[in-house]
Amino acid sequence: MRLLAFAASLRRGSLNRKLLHVAIDAARRQGAEVDEHPFADFVFPYYDGDLEAASGVPEGVARLGGLIEACDGLLLAAPEYNFSMPGTLKNTIDWISRIKPTPLRGKWALLLSTSSGMVGGIRGLWQLRIPLEGLGTFVHPDMYALPQGGQAFDEAGALKDAAQRERLEKMMAGYLDAVRKARA
Amino acid sequence: MRLLAFAASLRRGSLNRKLLHVAIDAARRQGAEVDEHPFADFVFPYYDGDLEAASGVPEGVARLGGLIEACDGLLLAAPEYNFSMPGTLKNTIDWISRIKPTPLRGKWALLLSTSSGMVGGIRGLWQLRIPLEGLGTFVHPDMYALPQGGQAFDEAGALKDAAQRERLEKMMAGYLDAVRKARA
Amino acid sequence: MRLLAFAASLRRGSLNRKLLHVAIDAARRQGAEVDEHPFADFVFPYYDGDLEAASGVPEGVARLGGLIEACDGLLLAAPEYNFSMPGTLKNTIDWISRIKPTPLRGKWALLLSTSSGMVGGIRGLWQLRIPLEGLGTFVHPDMYALPQGGQAFDEAGALKDAAQRERLEKMMAGYLDAVRKARA
Amino acid sequence: MRLLAFAASLRRGSLNRKLLHVAIDAARRQGAEVDEHPFADFVFPYYDGDLEAASGVPEGVARLGGLIEACDGLLLAAPEYNFSMPGTLKNTIDWISRIKPTPLRGKWALLLSTSSGMVGGIRGLWQLRIPLEGLGTFVHPDMYALPQGGQAFDEAGALKDAAQRERLEKMMAGYLDAVRKARA
Repeated sequence: MRLLAFAASLRRGSLNRKLLHVAIDAARRQGAEVDEHPFADFVFPYYDGDLEAASGVPEGVARLGGLIEACDGLLLAAPEYNFSMPGTLKNTIDWISRIKPTPLRGKWALLLSTSSGMVGGIRGLWQLRIPLEGLGTFVHPDMYALPQGGQAFDEAGALKDAAQRERLEKMMAGYLDAVRKARA
Repeated sequence: MRLLAFAASLRRGSLNRKLLHVAIDAARRQGAEVDEHPFADFVFPYYDGDLEAASGVPEGVARLGGLIEACDGLLLAAPEYNFSMPGTLKNTIDWISRIKPTPLRGKWALLLSTSSGMVGGIRGLWQLRIPLEGLGTFVHPDMYALPQGGQAFDEAGALKDAAQRERLEKMMAGYLDAVRKARA
Repeated sequence: MRLLAFAASLRRGSLNRKLLHVAIDAARRQGAEVDEHPFADFVFPYYDGDLEAASGVPEGVARLGGLIEACDGLLLAAPEYNFSMPGTLKNTIDWISRIKPTPLRGKWALLLSTSSGMVGGIRGLWQLRIPLEGLGTFVHPDMYALPQGGQAFDEAGALKDAAQRERLEKMMAGYLDAVRKARA
Repeated sequence: MRLLAFAASLRRGSLNRKLLHVAIDAARRQGAEVDEHPFADFVFPYYDGDLEAASGVPEGVARLGGLIEACDGLLLAAPEYNFSMPGTLKNTIDWISRIKPTPLRGKWALLLSTSSGMVGGIRGLWQLRIPLEGLGTFVHPDMYALPQGGQAFDEAGALKDAAQRERLEKMMAGYLDAVRKARA
C-alpha cells in the first residue's frame, strides 16, 4: 500500500507538519509505504478559468494528479483557518478537480489537524471533507484532531501523551484496514 | 450608505461578475453608493505564517482592510467550486483575518452566486458564510443564488426573467434595510 | 426589548439550562425583558405532512409561533448531539417553518452551548445556524460555547471563571445592541 | 450482502419513499438482499437523558440497533427540511448513538433525496452526513439527489428519465462494490 502525505501549511515550524510526521511513523510501523511531499510543491497559481482555457492545467497540477492516481490513499494534515480549511489547500483541490476524471475518485483520505487551542482544528476538517467527498474521495469517518499542539510534541517530535499516541495508532489501523480492503 | 463590491472570480467572462453588476444596479437604484473592485486587486500571496512574521500583512491586504473598514457592507458574488468557496477567496479572507481587530467585524455582507447548473452555487455560499460569520460579519440570512447563469442575462446584462429581477430587488431591499438600521 | 429564551434539553439537570440562566441574568442586567419557557412546552408531535394536511399545525406550534412573533429576539441554548443539533429541536423548527409567513424571519437569535468536554458544543451550533438562517433569522455571528460545563457553575449557578463571565457579558452586549438597532 | 432500507418520512405519499423503492430495485437487480422498514418503526420518544438514565434505551431503539448490527449497509432516503435533515431522523440517530459501541460504526450508507424543487434535497444530505460520519459510518461519497420528484416517477413507480435511471444504477454499482470490498 502506497500513501501520499502532505501538511497543508507553508510555515517552516508548522505544528501540522509535526503531526503529519507522527502519523507517517504510525503508518509505516503498520506496514504502509508513505511518500511525503512539501506543501510548496502543491501550491499552484490561483485558479482562473481563462488560464485553464489558454493552457490547460499547470504542469505541477498534472504532476500532483499523477501522484494521486498512483497512490492508494492520502494522509493530509491541515490547519484550521477561520473555522474552515486554508485557502491555499482549497485552491490546490480546485485545480485537481479540473483533471477529468478526477484522480481523487475512489482514493481514501485520512484527515488530521492540530492547533494551539483546545479544539485542535476539527472544525476546519469538517469543511475540508466537503470538496473531497464531493469529488468522490472516501474520506475516513474518523479524523484526528490534536488540541494544544504547541505543547504536544517532545524534542524528538513524538507525541508526549500516551493516550494520544494510542488514539492515533488505533485510528491509523482502522484507516489502513479500510484502504487494504478497498484495494483487494 | 457605502458598499464595497467584488466578484470572486478571475475569469474575464465571469457569470458571477455579471450577477454582481445587476446586484450593484439594484443597490444603487435603492440609494446605496457602491464601489466595485476587480477581484485581481484582492488576490494576495498564499497565506504563510513565516511571511507574516517577517513582514506583516502584505500592503494589498492592508489596503483591502482599509476599504472594508470604511464601508458599511459588502456585496460579494462568489462561484461555487467543488461544493465550497473558491480557494482564492478563502486565501483573501485568511489574510484579512490577520488584521487585528478584523475589519469584517460588524459589517454586513450580502452573498450572491450563479452557476450554469440548476443549483446556482448555493452550496458554496453556505460554506462561505462560515469564515465570515466566524470573523464577526453579519451575513444577511437571505442569499441570492441564480440557476442557469449562462442563459440568465440579456445583451445589456440585465436578468431576463422578471421573477428573478423582482426576487433580487426585494432581497436587496431587505439587506439595505438591515444595514441602514445597523448604522443608525 | 423582549426576548424569548429556552434550552433545548429535556433533562432536569441540563447544563445547557444552567448556561441559559446565566445568559438570561446577563440580558436582564443589561436591560432586556426575558421570558423563559420550559423546552417541554415546545416539543411537538413528529412532523408529518399527512398530519399537517389533516389538521394544520398543532396548537402548541401555533402558540410558539405567536411567542416568536411577539418577541424581538431569542436566547437559545442547545446541547450538541452527534456533532449537530438535537433532533427534538430540529423537529420544533420544522413545525415552526410551516407557519406562513414564518415568525422567525427578521428575529435575532443568540446561540449558546455547553458540554462536559473541551469543545463546548460549538459544532452543534454551527449546524443549528443553517435551518435558522435558511428561515430568515438573523443569527448573531458570535456564539457562546462553554467548555467543561460540568465544572463551570458554582452552587448559586453562576459561572466560576471570571474570564468566561466577562466574555458572556460582552457578547450579550453586542447581541442586544444589534437587536436594539434592528428594532429602531 | 444484506442492506437495511428506510425513507425518513412519515407521509404516506412520500416522494422519498418512491425514490427509496427505485433504489431498492436497483440494489436487488445488482445482487443485494434488501430489507425495507417503515419509518414509523424507527420513530422513538424524544431523546431525554433522564429517560435514558431511568430505563436505558427504549426497546425499539435496541431493535433498530440489532438490525443495523446485522446489516452490511444502509439505503437511506431523507427529505430536506429547512436546509438540513428531518428532526425526526436526527432523533433516531441521537438514540442509536446511545448504544455502545454504536452499531453504525463501520457500516456503509448510501444517501438519497428528492424534492419537488430543482435542488432535490442535496443540502439536507450534506447535513445528514455529519452525525453519521461522526459516529463512524462510511457514508458513500456519491449521493443521489433527484430534482422535481413530483414529476419524476411513472405510474409503476419507475424513474421516467433514462439518464436519471442510469445515474442511479451506476451510483448503486459503485456503492455495492465498496460494501463488498469492505466485507471481504
